[in-house]
Amino acid sequence: MADPAPYYSAHVFACVNERPEGHPRGCCKRKGAEKLRNYMKARAKELGLKDVRINQSGCLDRCELGPTLVIYPEGVWYSYHSIEDAEEILQRHLIKGERVERLMLQPEDKLPEDRAARLKSAQ
Amino acid sequence: MADPAPYYSAHVFACVNERPEGHPRGCCKRKGAEKLRNYMKARAKELGLKDVRINQSGCLDRCELGPTLVIYPEGVWYSYHSIEDAEEILQRHLIKGERVERLMLQPEDKLPEDRAARLKSAQ
Repeated sequence: MADPAPYYSAHVFACVNERPEGHPRGCCKRKGAEKLRNYMKARAKELGLKDVRINQSGCLDRCELGPTLVIYPEGVWYSYHSIEDAEEILQRHLIKGERVERLMLQPEDKLPEDRAARLKSAQ
Repeated sequence: MADPAPYYSAHVFACVNERPEGHPRGCCKRKGAEKLRNYMKARAKELGLKDVRINQSGCLDRCELGPTLVIYPEGVWYSYHSIEDAEEILQRHLIKGERVERLMLQPEDKLPEDRAARLKSAQ
């Protein structure tokens, strides 16, 4: 039997996990994740996005690259650091169905250095 | 360009949201969600499940049917109430790739009555 139809057309999980200060991996919360997630949630409502849910989540385990979020069912990950980044994800990914390539994470990105090297080599 | 390969082969989000006591919608936390999610997380590790992550999440907005969880990328939702339910989801969905039909939610399930009626009519 086929799986049920999707309950949300886009289900966003934004990590807001907090680790103790000085933890070597860092954490999304200490990098402003809560403000960014709250912005996305309020803005999605304001923009009238239907069947889109902006959830907070526990640790997504890509702390070094945070704040991170993942959008399902497509499983696209972003590292976003500002209201402008959040707005671009809303406008381009969630509204237009595009991808914000400058913010996207690849599976091989474990550390900020990995991501910087990949972005540099793609130029 | 195709989306990146999945970072997790199964990404589980278990709602642990808490509402004030007496809230008409209820909440997953007051129905034992945290214990169930902690069990699943520990058990997934014990079973050696690779590329599976059992996250906690904020309110998934299906409170009346809680505790709920959703597994992506397939987007399959479950309403689970006991350690036995959690174990069955681990063994059948996450290990064997099956579905635990008796616990699955359909998009039209909004209230426990909807689900009960659907399950009854399917007998």
